[in-house]
Amino acid sequence: MKKYLKNNANIVFMSKVENISEEKEVLDQGENLLSKLALEAELADYSPVKGCMVIRPYGYAAWEQVRDALDKMIKDTGHQNAYFPLFIPESFLKKEAEHVEGFAPECAVVTYGGGKELEEKLVVRPTSETIINYMFSKWVQSYRDLPLLLNQWANVVRWEMRTRLFLRTTEFLWQEGHTCHATKEEAEEETIKMLGVYKKLSEEYLAIPIVDGLKTESQRFAGAVTTYCIEGLMKDGKALQMGTSHYLGQNFAKAFETKFQDQNGELQFVHQTSWGVSTRLIGALIMTHHDEKGLKFPPRIAPIQIVIVPIYKTDVEKEMVLKKCKELEESLKENFRIKIDDRDQYSPGWKFNHWEFKGVPIRLNLGPKDISNNVVEIVRRDTLEKLRGIPQEGLLQYLIKLSTEIQENLFRQANDFKNKNTEFVASEKEFIEKITTTPGFLVSFWCGSSSCEDHIKEKTKATIRCIPFNTPDCQNIPVDQMKKEGYCIVCNKDAKQKVIFAKAY
Amino acid sequence: MKKYLKNNANIVFMSKVENISEEKEVLDQGENLLSKLALEAELADYSPVKGCMVIRPYGYAAWEQVRDALDKMIKDTGHQNAYFPLFIPESFLKKEAEHVEGFAPECAVVTYGGGKELEEKLVVRPTSETIINYMFSKWVQSYRDLPLLLNQWANVVRWEMRTRLFLRTTEFLWQEGHTCHATKEEAEEETIKMLGVYKKLSEEYLAIPIVDGLKTESQRFAGAVTTYCIEGLMKDGKALQMGTSHYLGQNFAKAFETKFQDQNGELQFVHQTSWGVSTRLIGALIMTHHDEKGLKFPPRIAPIQIVIVPIYKTDVEKEMVLKKCKELEESLKENFRIKIDDRDQYSPGWKFNHWEFKGVPIRLNLGPKDISNNVVEIVRRDTLEKLRGIPQEGLLQYLIKLSTEIQENLFRQANDFKNKNTEFVASEKEFIEKITTTPGFLVSFWCGSSSCEDHIKEKTKATIRCIPFNTPDCQNIPVDQMKKEGYCIVCNKDAKQKVIFAKAY
Repeated sequence: MKKYLKNNANIVFMSKVENISEEKEVLDQGENLLSKLALEAELADYSPVKGCMVIRPYGYAAWEQVRDALDKMIKDTGHQNAYFPLFIPESFLKKEAEHVEGFAPECAVVTYGGGKELEEKLVVRPTSETIINYMFSKWVQSYRDLPLLLNQWANVVRWEMRTRLFLRTTEFLWQEGHTCHATKEEAEEETIKMLGVYKKLSEEYLAIPIVDGLKTESQRFAGAVTTYCIEGLMKDGKALQMGTSHYLGQNFAKAFETKFQDQNGELQFVHQTSWGVSTRLIGALIMTHHDEKGLKFPPRIAPIQIVIVPIYKTDVEKEMVLKKCKELEESLKENFRIKIDDRDQYSPGWKFNHWEFKGVPIRLNLGPKDISNNVVEIVRRDTLEKLRGIPQEGLLQYLIKLSTEIQENLFRQANDFKNKNTEFVASEKEFIEKITTTPGFLVSFWCGSSSCEDHIKEKTKATIRCIPFNTPDCQNIPVDQMKKEGYCIVCNKDAKQKVIFAKAY
Repeated sequence: MKKYLKNNANIVFMSKVENISEEKEVLDQGENLLSKLALEAELADYSPVKGCMVIRPYGYAAWEQVRDALDKMIKDTGHQNAYFPLFIPESFLKKEAEHVEGFAPECAVVTYGGGKELEEKLVVRPTSETIINYMFSKWVQSYRDLPLLLNQWANVVRWEMRTRLFLRTTEFLWQEGHTCHATKEEAEEETIKMLGVYKKLSEEYLAIPIVDGLKTESQRFAGAVTTYCIEGLMKDGKALQMGTSHYLGQNFAKAFETKFQDQNGELQFVHQTSWGVSTRLIGALIMTHHDEKGLKFPPRIAPIQIVIVPIYKTDVEKEMVLKKCKELEESLKENFRIKIDDRDQYSPGWKFNHWEFKGVPIRLNLGPKDISNNVVEIVRRDTLEKLRGIPQEGLLQYLIKLSTEIQENLFRQANDFKNKNTEFVASEKEFIEKITTTPGFLVSFWCGSSSCEDHIKEKTKATIRCIPFNTPDCQNIPVDQMKKEGYCIVCNKDAKQKVIFAKAY
């Protein structure tokens, strides 16, 4: 993420950067909705520290689901977790020229420790390539030490001017993978493989369809040779970068002397990758899966997958109904994250709204009549469909099937939305019209020059999200009818590549 | 942990504290051993940031086992995880007088962010009572919101002068529980309950016997009413505080106005607790379970529980043996964390030493003869006993039983050590003699005055580790023959309580 806020080459960490003025806090519609959903569903809260948020238990439980699913995939692909220091000596950041240029303006800096002014200032890690490379250069000696495949779950800090709950916070939680390889080919393969892991996480767990591809130079990670990304399309028509995977080449290896002796006894710099996703993914969930009644959690990530609402009038009914609820909970809790809402101070109707707002995928309503008929009433959050008279016998199997169906349906809904809001545009005029009236992914030819990219950005605030691996189907023209070559929408010169533009978070 | 380094009431964060001089780095025997084991077994490494360590994959995997076991217990006792900001406004820390006095001298302070000098300095959290209470005061309104039972897994920073791998590092990983209750009784019950969880974790997972009890005033957490602890006895005869649980009373509630409306409609301050254990537990593991051949991991925490070492001479043998190793791995991997060491560049003998040093509880040796006899050779790390000719049929059940046995045996060994090194002393003379010649837990009568406590500390560096819930059996006098009352070893006045003294990490 090379930022638009940069200083010149030799960054002075302590200088007051006058050109960074705080933007006025005007929330657009999408941002308003994000705040409303995140705050009222108790996923997060504002904190007293500017730009930092508090992740509340319901939001953290969702993050735990995402983390555990991804952690398993990271380990299954041969990586090991480790932990590196929070603090990075200021001098480390300066060793890689592009890296310091990109990150220095965003750093939080510790200048005092234990009551004393520090001799060398410590930067709170915005990302850990530098300090990890310092350790790599100690650990890597021979080709036998390669590949070295590490991952870290950690908090990082990037001083942001304009923050949004989950999507852009000064401190956020993430994982950062860091790997060393003997060859360029191996490192590039790793970069693509881990992007594939992110795609799988997004599509199969978060139920969010993405476009994967290569970032242009202007959006490249500061210090990388190439940056790949997955981009989602949020319901307000804005794109969200959901994960990035970088081929770092030998840039950091050269800065930190990370070398190995190859099989011929020659010293070589390692080839490296790094890749990360963050709590931003919870923001992606919120902005993808919701309707006018609130959130819609995909079952695989939902903190609570099933809520049981007991319905009764008399004390006798209450006792009988609660007993049955507990029996159902017992029989389902090995397979589902399940909760009975037995609070007395709220009516069933209040609870229906409450849990719909919180996005619980499946609700079971249970009253005296259901009990005497040996059935339950089920309400699907994705469609709000009411399924009456579902037999208690075989309920577990029914719910397992239903849960898969809801997971798939949420992906389908999001995918339909993405497809409907992906359009091909052939000219700048058309581009500007579309981006103003119906924001979404806009596919168009691009000559490859930064000036044409910048031109669009200045005029419309839209940026090139990626050069996609596969051009997506467009609403107005199927991919098989699209030309392979065309003309850049800005300069009209010959263009060999199609890119995806969008306004983005 | 109220520190011996304090300033006067009105702490100036930025002042140079002249009385904190860096101690000369002279490692004693125990510390030397700790470094050797932690570094050479690749659990951790020194980092380029003073006082911070790198947790390497093998050490982090052990921490993941500890974390996952404890996380489950924390959730099973009704707590939920959340996440609060890394940064705490300086003014927050000052709101509770004892708290700031205890922690200010240890703080790392951020003074610059995003290239600008900050209006209010931010402290990197040394613990989170203050910022969490700020949020609690927003969230807690009514008795219906109580109890509020939260936990956070996080990194914290305490500027330490003298650091030791795992045992005392400037940054460390931990969990911190924070709870609010309607009554003193409930909060006190919670404090004791969570200490019990730590005891269970220590004894049943880490296989480390502990003494549990109350801290004296001088060792109390800064801001708490009472602090309870579990204390382990390391193999070098030093005590280690392994976990603490605090009843905070209404101290932080009053500082942050955390109030609720009770059932009579009256506003009351909540009663609070906090409790934590950290990566120090990995240090406790190292310093409890080792011998001259290296580490000895208890099976429940071991990153690798079983290592298979293939033994072969010819290529034909190699193929056959590796095939069988993989079959065994397949049949065991659902129940065990298992690894085949199939590296060609090392001999079986080298591998035996290597995995013994790394403390893997069970080793399977497998050669052509074993295969033709349908057996394996097993070596227990705890006793180094070689079990020859163990049938491959029923191996899984055999290993499950063996694993339990090793876990229990390691606890027994550690418990025997603790008992052998716990002695009752009746006079100061005897105390000084014992603490100099055979360090360990020393039980003695204490009058309750700080001056007698300080006297012993100044003379011997030993401190009161706790006022134990139950006086432990002593090597020289069984607990049932011990008097209930006696005379303080320092002032000879009447003393009603027996305490445990020790030199400590």
